[in-house]
Amino acid sequence: MNENEAREVVRASTDELQAHRSMTHAHDPERRTLLRRSAAAVAGGLAGAAGVARAETLDVPPSNRQMGRPMPESEYGMPSKFESHVRRRRSDVLVNKQNYSDWSMTPLHQQHGMVTPNGLIYERHHNGVPEIDPERHRFVIHGMVRQPLEFTMSDLMKYPSVSRFYFMECSGNGLTDWLKASSKTVQQTHGLLSCAQWTGVPVSTLLQEAGVSPGATWGLAEGADGAAHARSIPMQKLLDDALLVYAANGEMLRPENGYPLRLFLPGWEGNVCIKWLRRIELADQPWNLRSETARYSDPMPDGKWRQFSFTMETKSVITSPSGGMKVAPGEIEVQGFAWSGSGTVRAVDVTVDGGRTWREAVLESPVLDKCLTRFRYRWRWDGTPARIASRAVDSTGYVQPTVEDIRKVRAITGFVQHHNGIFPWSIDASGEVRNAIA
Amino acid sequence: MNENEAREVVRASTDELQAHRSMTHAHDPERRTLLRRSAAAVAGGLAGAAGVARAETLDVPPSNRQMGRPMPESEYGMPSKFESHVRRRRSDVLVNKQNYSDWSMTPLHQQHGMVTPNGLIYERHHNGVPEIDPERHRFVIHGMVRQPLEFTMSDLMKYPSVSRFYFMECSGNGLTDWLKASSKTVQQTHGLLSCAQWTGVPVSTLLQEAGVSPGATWGLAEGADGAAHARSIPMQKLLDDALLVYAANGEMLRPENGYPLRLFLPGWEGNVCIKWLRRIELADQPWNLRSETARYSDPMPDGKWRQFSFTMETKSVITSPSGGMKVAPGEIEVQGFAWSGSGTVRAVDVTVDGGRTWREAVLESPVLDKCLTRFRYRWRWDGTPARIASRAVDSTGYVQPTVEDIRKVRAITGFVQHHNGIFPWSIDASGEVRNAIA
Repeated sequence: MNENEAREVVRASTDELQAHRSMTHAHDPERRTLLRRSAAAVAGGLAGAAGVARAETLDVPPSNRQMGRPMPESEYGMPSKFESHVRRRRSDVLVNKQNYSDWSMTPLHQQHGMVTPNGLIYERHHNGVPEIDPERHRFVIHGMVRQPLEFTMSDLMKYPSVSRFYFMECSGNGLTDWLKASSKTVQQTHGLLSCAQWTGVPVSTLLQEAGVSPGATWGLAEGADGAAHARSIPMQKLLDDALLVYAANGEMLRPENGYPLRLFLPGWEGNVCIKWLRRIELADQPWNLRSETARYSDPMPDGKWRQFSFTMETKSVITSPSGGMKVAPGEIEVQGFAWSGSGTVRAVDVTVDGGRTWREAVLESPVLDKCLTRFRYRWRWDGTPARIASRAVDSTGYVQPTVEDIRKVRAITGFVQHHNGIFPWSIDASGEVRNAIA
Repeated sequence: MNENEAREVVRASTDELQAHRSMTHAHDPERRTLLRRSAAAVAGGLAGAAGVARAETLDVPPSNRQMGRPMPESEYGMPSKFESHVRRRRSDVLVNKQNYSDWSMTPLHQQHGMVTPNGLIYERHHNGVPEIDPERHRFVIHGMVRQPLEFTMSDLMKYPSVSRFYFMECSGNGLTDWLKASSKTVQQTHGLLSCAQWTGVPVSTLLQEAGVSPGATWGLAEGADGAAHARSIPMQKLLDDALLVYAANGEMLRPENGYPLRLFLPGWEGNVCIKWLRRIELADQPWNLRSETARYSDPMPDGKWRQFSFTMETKSVITSPSGGMKVAPGEIEVQGFAWSGSGTVRAVDVTVDGGRTWREAVLESPVLDKCLTRFRYRWRWDGTPARIASRAVDSTGYVQPTVEDIRKVRAITGFVQHHNGIFPWSIDASGEVRNAIA
């Protein structure tokens, strides 16, 4: 036992409230001046403190004078009613009422730390969210295997599992914001992005049991949703770090995130991390589904389309201050996220002069492989119009490109996937922050 | 751009459904035998697979044949209705209906990974859960300071913040299970324990602004709840790593966890991490409140009581298999948590023979300071009665003690705080797992 801070005392029967209140009054000169720490005061620090001083008693709030509410045993904890504005709002463009093809986006500007809470993890569905009874769900490995296998959820959850922090991002994140400022907030520009600790079974474990046939080079992953969403996955990835995920941030997946089972391919576009996963079929070629020819492919300068560009390249964005916010002159805590589907974030640079000069931001630990990394940069804004942006560098040395850099190797037109360009915000003289991509 | 896995193809207009279904049927011999992977099969691995083989088609589940539900824009994501059994159940002992003094416990056996989801973080309240409007909440630093300061939540959230993963544990965790098996499940024995990424402002930042008077050695932290719960905190801790926390796992604290503001003292008992924090007062001595004399103190062998034993000492527990579970002979994935209020977990040993022999478990990364660390140990159970337990060693070299070790330096009687003893589970011949502390 560590006795360092321990003292031995005779057990006392002091009444807490009395002792407490009398002590408080002894220490608290009722008419002493409290300095109200306003935003301006924060900016100035101690020396230049410009807070609003007011003489007052130390108010005892109403909540101190009454009992709170009891906690029902059956209750699952929920956010305060005062946080009801923190929601995954959908884009109000393109919501398809006919087939329930829709998505919702993580409020990155309201996220603290690197973990996205489960209630706010972004999601994309092509035909609504299915309700699946885990007792009835089956997962099958078949096709070019020695022995096809069928698993219940109970079977799967007995296998050795791993839990790893990874970001997940939709390939379409920011697809409307290459050339003009289509979206106002960072939730709209970058909110098809989340981060969680994912728990599941390595796909390689189960493929080993099934016995991969010689010549099998691709797997088809298919969901049990109304769209039967499916994608072809290279065998290499399935054997490398692919997971059959059933939990996120400590509990079973939420229905819209694939309950009870999804594929998770670290660092790859969310679209291939098939939700409501019911089967993986092995074959010697990809399937060339519409989801990998007409969709989820990248236009190239020569008019052809690049297929199977799975990796989400190194990217970053400033989340505070960001579009829709208003700031005051003085010290500003610039914050944002950086991530790379190819490794860890090595560094993030921040510009406050539209890209003329860059300074290195501080990265918050732990900095993990293929995981959101929060950066911070302390900036004193003088109140003149500014243009701010971040630029990430990953562990492979890859530097987040400008849109102009990307345009040299790809055609940028319409709804383009895989936008990892440097993303600027403008701040006008009144402090209003706006999307400045154009 | 990484072009490794990219191919260029002419944009096709293949119809996904047709291509998909025809490809599936080509690859899927309808009457081929699927091997059902039962628990026994899992245990046996590939060579000894004893699955239930059945000839069948690859069933298309009902969820594939219909649209799912749309996602309302205002919705905050919730667990599946099939997970309604995963709840923070209260101890059914000692619930005080008169003053709403109560607690709820994290279902550790149902937790995946190291993050406790916000809806399942344990909590203890002495007078119900207050509802606090963050717009009206004020936090004050006063007493032995040069300049008393008052902060709104908006003020506080403009300060540079940090986000860190830490465990939190009630000093009373396991207090009924020193000498006899009072609790059945690990939720009941150890569920006053959670882990989250906490976001907030270092207390030291604000104390520096207020200016700590010479001679100030203690701070009183008080909550805005009906109990006005308060504790004396040594100045050293406040200046070291204490945080004013407003968010957990990416979003604002849940009401029962202190919304909108709580004190967080890494590695220290949850009781001092004052929720609904409204003030810190500095003084030159502790307050000796009832909460630190009649409560939250440890009986010593000579009849005196040890005060201010804040640190939660190194501890571990097996969460699977644990009390109330039933296991079958064969390979068992033993899992559990280890943690230390004094540093990182260096190692965890597991015994399956009642403590005669110990083998080192595998720790899951990242292994972080004062944070839950998951360990895993693969064990082949032969079906004979067994007694299993874990033993943690931390970065200071401290080894988790047995109850007998602890008894040499402390008196164990009644409801004793700070139980960090090695905790055994018994498994009988039928596979039933029980609390074996007695």
